[in-house]
Amino acid sequence: MNERRKMEKPAAEGAVDADTNELDSRPNAWGRWGHDDEAGAVNLIGPEQVKRAAGLVRTGQVIRLAQLLSSKTPVPKHRAGLQHFMHRDGGDYAAGSRRPGGFQFGEDTVMMPLHIGTHIDGLCHAWCEEKMFNGYRETTMRSTGATRLGVEKMPPFVTRGLLVDLVRLRGRALADGEVVTRGYIEACLAAAGLRIESGDAVLLHTGWLASQAGQAEVDFNAEPGIDHEAGLWLAQQEVAVIGADNFAVEVLPFAPGTVFPVHQCVIRDFGIPLLEGVALAPLAASGRLEFLFVAAALPIVGATGSPLAPLAVL
Amino acid sequence: MNERRKMEKPAAEGAVDADTNELDSRPNAWGRWGHDDEAGAVNLIGPEQVKRAAGLVRTGQVIRLAQLLSSKTPVPKHRAGLQHFMHRDGGDYAAGSRRPGGFQFGEDTVMMPLHIGTHIDGLCHAWCEEKMFNGYRETTMRSTGATRLGVEKMPPFVTRGLLVDLVRLRGRALADGEVVTRGYIEACLAAAGLRIESGDAVLLHTGWLASQAGQAEVDFNAEPGIDHEAGLWLAQQEVAVIGADNFAVEVLPFAPGTVFPVHQCVIRDFGIPLLEGVALAPLAASGRLEFLFVAAALPIVGATGSPLAPLAVL
Amino acid sequence: MNERRKMEKPAAEGAVDADTNELDSRPNAWGRWGHDDEAGAVNLIGPEQVKRAAGLVRTGQVIRLAQLLSSKTPVPKHRAGLQHFMHRDGGDYAAGSRRPGGFQFGEDTVMMPLHIGTHIDGLCHAWCEEKMFNGYRETTMRSTGATRLGVEKMPPFVTRGLLVDLVRLRGRALADGEVVTRGYIEACLAAAGLRIESGDAVLLHTGWLASQAGQAEVDFNAEPGIDHEAGLWLAQQEVAVIGADNFAVEVLPFAPGTVFPVHQCVIRDFGIPLLEGVALAPLAASGRLEFLFVAAALPIVGATGSPLAPLAVL
Amino acid sequence: MNERRKMEKPAAEGAVDADTNELDSRPNAWGRWGHDDEAGAVNLIGPEQVKRAAGLVRTGQVIRLAQLLSSKTPVPKHRAGLQHFMHRDGGDYAAGSRRPGGFQFGEDTVMMPLHIGTHIDGLCHAWCEEKMFNGYRETTMRSTGATRLGVEKMPPFVTRGLLVDLVRLRGRALADGEVVTRGYIEACLAAAGLRIESGDAVLLHTGWLASQAGQAEVDFNAEPGIDHEAGLWLAQQEVAVIGADNFAVEVLPFAPGTVFPVHQCVIRDFGIPLLEGVALAPLAASGRLEFLFVAAALPIVGATGSPLAPLAVL
Repeated sequence: MNERRKMEKPAAEGAVDADTNELDSRPNAWGRWGHDDEAGAVNLIGPEQVKRAAGLVRTGQVIRLAQLLSSKTPVPKHRAGLQHFMHRDGGDYAAGSRRPGGFQFGEDTVMMPLHIGTHIDGLCHAWCEEKMFNGYRETTMRSTGATRLGVEKMPPFVTRGLLVDLVRLRGRALADGEVVTRGYIEACLAAAGLRIESGDAVLLHTGWLASQAGQAEVDFNAEPGIDHEAGLWLAQQEVAVIGADNFAVEVLPFAPGTVFPVHQCVIRDFGIPLLEGVALAPLAASGRLEFLFVAAALPIVGATGSPLAPLAVL
Repeated sequence: MNERRKMEKPAAEGAVDADTNELDSRPNAWGRWGHDDEAGAVNLIGPEQVKRAAGLVRTGQVIRLAQLLSSKTPVPKHRAGLQHFMHRDGGDYAAGSRRPGGFQFGEDTVMMPLHIGTHIDGLCHAWCEEKMFNGYRETTMRSTGATRLGVEKMPPFVTRGLLVDLVRLRGRALADGEVVTRGYIEACLAAAGLRIESGDAVLLHTGWLASQAGQAEVDFNAEPGIDHEAGLWLAQQEVAVIGADNFAVEVLPFAPGTVFPVHQCVIRDFGIPLLEGVALAPLAASGRLEFLFVAAALPIVGATGSPLAPLAVL
Repeated sequence: MNERRKMEKPAAEGAVDADTNELDSRPNAWGRWGHDDEAGAVNLIGPEQVKRAAGLVRTGQVIRLAQLLSSKTPVPKHRAGLQHFMHRDGGDYAAGSRRPGGFQFGEDTVMMPLHIGTHIDGLCHAWCEEKMFNGYRETTMRSTGATRLGVEKMPPFVTRGLLVDLVRLRGRALADGEVVTRGYIEACLAAAGLRIESGDAVLLHTGWLASQAGQAEVDFNAEPGIDHEAGLWLAQQEVAVIGADNFAVEVLPFAPGTVFPVHQCVIRDFGIPLLEGVALAPLAASGRLEFLFVAAALPIVGATGSPLAPLAVL
Repeated sequence: MNERRKMEKPAAEGAVDADTNELDSRPNAWGRWGHDDEAGAVNLIGPEQVKRAAGLVRTGQVIRLAQLLSSKTPVPKHRAGLQHFMHRDGGDYAAGSRRPGGFQFGEDTVMMPLHIGTHIDGLCHAWCEEKMFNGYRETTMRSTGATRLGVEKMPPFVTRGLLVDLVRLRGRALADGEVVTRGYIEACLAAAGLRIESGDAVLLHTGWLASQAGQAEVDFNAEPGIDHEAGLWLAQQEVAVIGADNFAVEVLPFAPGTVFPVHQCVIRDFGIPLLEGVALAPLAASGRLEFLFVAAALPIVGATGSPLAPLAVL
């Protein structure tokens, strides 16, 4: 993973020069890993972080932190759901399809929005002021995809995972619109005797996802989540990725006058991807708050995100 | 992971009864993990295997073993390629789209065959004699997907990976149609001082994938790979998964009179999934033959397989 | 169009023999146009019908009888909506895409269920007792589509159209669940001094579609439409096609104990396609009840139906 | 159809003002049908044109001028082919699916590029100098489709069709790269004793499509077709639509230094759509050169084109 620690090189096409970076009015991590870096905060996970994380394995239990993906997986109204199509199935054989050499098979195709179920927001998913993370211009993303910061440029996450169990802290699932403040997070960590270190994966358990299970209609307009202050603080703690068991990691509705302020700060300013829709209930039930965390996006060229199946190894 | 070690329970709908299993004429692992098991050989990976694998991490280097996914990812002629569509991109903003609260975003959808690039063949992908692994009837898979053995039933793989580097053994990429025999595999392992143990992930480096790079047209009808004898032997060694840097793990063309005989034996008889199209060149270049291996399919309900991004942690 | 009047030939693969046809217990038109016919009642439109229809043009006004197709086009819950994707658009140029030779273009792809908006039900869309129209076995339709009775086998409709304006008859839009009886239809025709002739396209104006306009959610479980008796009677009048401004032509809910009885009778027994979701309000407003009717499905091989844009030429 | 003859109204959003139109350096028809017109040359088809066309019906024969649509329909390399998926088919019933009330059905979905097979290029498909037909700005077309000049704004074509049978004129299929000049077209028409009139649909029979039948690979880079001069002349004759049995109507390769010059002139400057991939061999075989022509695009909102099944009624 040390190949990620890049030397500063002349800026590539689409990257702004250092002067421009400095003019950006928002606190950010631009240029920190080189002006042509497209990986962002995952660079904080070096070999030491990986080794330390592997050393956390105690019981050997593996927990998949992913929602099932199907046409029933809830999506907000502006997205279409997943569709799954069979090219060949058992019915075809029942209807008489030939089986040369005895061989029979099933085969299928899927169509899905990339921000569905448990998924990662790539670094080109959200931005503001015409510039993406590290100063890349928005015009690098067109109908054929993103030539900069595509999810295929994001290395896998193998690092220490920290479960911030807000449900345990509050003794209940958080309410829609309830802000997960920096104070909440610090209280959770303090109760567990844990401290965020550089390169950690921080997973926030709000209880929202479990509370939606079995609902005919999921409301994607209100949920508990972090506010801008908490997001900025997490970024300053040098987390590599922030996940939550909700739709957007951040609280909905937004603070008045803002729209996805955490996305703007965390993804665009600091190059930290968000893991959304993470299924955290089984992990929370295990009681383990520190573990080996592994997640790898599908390397879809030029994509803004990817469904994936993150793992906690206990 | 111990929850996978199921008690024998009354057979579920779609599962055949024990008598029927016993009548099946082929050597198999049916019933081994219960008559209603849908996970197969991944059951061989218990907590001890996970812990041992985590203990293999030495340098902390992480290698992603996945091909990039795009419309250029080669697929055999009977499959359509991946398509990637943008719902919102930087061009829209350049053309004047509004940015409420300053927020800007890109969003996309992908359509792809599930057996594309680096992917796993689920246990319902291949069968014969009307029955799938563990005796499930083929009629459990219809146009709406597989109600049995779908890829969402396959737990993640966190286990010891073994690289069987046939390219190193032969001093060259294997030739199209060249059989990777049991002997080849044993020679590789012996040279490395390694021995397959129950629950291992075995990855076969043939050199085929790297040899196709940059080809205008990839020929999916001829490649080096294992034959039925090697597949059966690996199954009897209790591997949890078999991967290779080729299209079908098994040699093409098939032995005369057979069609995908390894798929029939390994997947259907023994419940061992195949990992196809694994990008092994960087791993082989590292020289490490034993490592922590992690792979997790997208849990697409009723699907016959899934693209994924397996990892080797060195 | 006379090439449609086929000689009786030996039955093709998938067609049942004459004896079997005769054993079918339901009144039907099987074998009427030859045992290998796949076009059905459109055969009733011969050159004379076409010429007579062309002779009905008086004012030269052309009315398109189609709903707009978009992601907002209502579909029942078991179908996914249309998706429209741009491969190249004006935003790409605004973002800097090159324009060799000055040429600029937009290009797109659509994904849609074939029974969406204004569409025709092909003869393989509905059946019962394992047999489709003309005795074709259901096993001729597999995951790769229908090898018999696909919509590409359906010649275009150029014939006399008759508007049965039930809204005018009743002085109001029909109610959900209100049966359009044979008596209603006969009363409408009598009031207009019209009589169904062989090969006619009969269009039923119920007012349902207009009543759904602007609804946030369309209820596809209740609507006015014909019952089995009316469907059978229309079939016996030798209509070539039946259309309506509703979801299923037939009344919903069905008569107790039946499921889509009109589909079974009209499509499967008599080879008469149904035109669903026809936008009839503008035609009704014109006051013209007899006109040149033109409709042509997209010739999608093996498909069960097709969206289309039928025309009335007044 | 007289509703198409619009009064001049204040320009809508996205339309340029009259001054701007006049400044455009290319001969064009902008503003001719009002500054907010989105239909273009189809406005030339008024009630008289429709009536005259209907009067051309002699034998009552109907010829469908469309290619079959399937995964085998050739597309140029930059487009993906059609995909057809079954949601329910006969195999499902063979495998045991229930049939409530006896009802059985097949249902399907299609994914296709809109410029496939026999299709119409909408007025927003091609442009230059940042402006589309009638002066609409290219920025009116974004990832969500075209808000101006979408194919749903194009009324159906019911008009006189003229077959310009270049194959008959030359006694052979035209060669790849052979220019269909204005002289060729005039010679064809003179030989037939025909003359283009305002609102006609002109169909050019080059023989190219028939010559590609059965080819494993269709070359979309070379074909016979019209040059800029012929296109401009046809536009000046006030044709409503130009069709051909080739890929692009215009000759390929282009004249040096130009890229799709006919598209730029005919679609963008004059608002005349192109009908591409028209299957003209059966019509040519009929010997009829003048007929009732009918074509109606699918009204897909914001789309740049649409597959369709045009008809010649003889």
